[in-house]
Amino acid sequence: MRSYPVQGPLPAFYHYYPGVPAVVGVRLGERVNFCPAVWNTGLSANPPLFGVALSPKRFTHGLLLEARRFAVSFHPHAQAALVQWLGSVSGREVDKGRVPHFLGRTGVPVLEGAYAAYELELLEVRTFGDHDLFVGKVVAVWEEEAFLDEKGRPKPGLSLLYYGKGLYGRPSEETFTP
Amino acid sequence: MRSYPVQGPLPAFYHYYPGVPAVVGVRLGERVNFCPAVWNTGLSANPPLFGVALSPKRFTHGLLLEARRFAVSFHPHAQAALVQWLGSVSGREVDKGRVPHFLGRTGVPVLEGAYAAYELELLEVRTFGDHDLFVGKVVAVWEEEAFLDEKGRPKPGLSLLYYGKGLYGRPSEETFTP
Repeated sequence: MRSYPVQGPLPAFYHYYPGVPAVVGVRLGERVNFCPAVWNTGLSANPPLFGVALSPKRFTHGLLLEARRFAVSFHPHAQAALVQWLGSVSGREVDKGRVPHFLGRTGVPVLEGAYAAYELELLEVRTFGDHDLFVGKVVAVWEEEAFLDEKGRPKPGLSLLYYGKGLYGRPSEETFTP
Repeated sequence: MRSYPVQGPLPAFYHYYPGVPAVVGVRLGERVNFCPAVWNTGLSANPPLFGVALSPKRFTHGLLLEARRFAVSFHPHAQAALVQWLGSVSGREVDKGRVPHFLGRTGVPVLEGAYAAYELELLEVRTFGDHDLFVGKVVAVWEEEAFLDEKGRPKPGLSLLYYGKGLYGRPSEETFTP
């Protein structure tokens, strides 16, 4: 095993990839935008809090600061190309609101095809280095029951989408083994 | 798709599982402890910051507040049973320092068998709901070169460990497809 000390930025910071990307959906007036965020995590069980780290360079960042509400959705591997596209173009240049979606109970846009989605109220924004962590409280849940078990976990038959710095993959059928 | 509003805690909050668990290693004096955290995420590229959310109930939580340094390591599927065990017993009852590990450049303990690990300095602790987010700055990297590509990403041949609320799995060989 080799090791090296780090002083500035890392030559590579992807060792913990691939992870499940959360597709962030935001609506501000008539403007709807989506962007995938692989830097996402659960933060609290009670209250249920979920966080996504976004660069201030992202179009979504500014929209979300104003809208104060957002959705995160989780998608099957079959939608890899769409999710990749959403991450490769900016809402400044492309109207991503044309992508099929629906509005949730709180008016936030949810990308079609998700096996699960949360609607969130923005609680806090915390700057950590060159990204801001948007902390949302889950106020509504969407579930595709056929793909989830009784605990809300993706079922073994569901081909999950994982993201890893430009590479997309799916887990094997045997992914869930107790 | 069914939906429901949420007011208190969620009946299930695992839709975004399974993810790559980060095994947190902490040393305080002679005391060494490890615990896996699936609520983990990159937070910043420059400086390189990584976060893990830990419940104050966890033994590691108190140790880390004092030690101010920690390691996170990422492990292959072959170590699933070990990682599961580390998450199922508390350092209050079991001396996890007996598990094979080594001390990194900054003295933090790294669990043996990882394909990659970071040594971190604790920068901040932020409370979000019932967990605290420990934000660390990466000060050293460990890499098992045979398992990582030139960008530091796990190679397709590496059988990754994913965690999902009591279930452990691995991705298929085809996980990484550009």
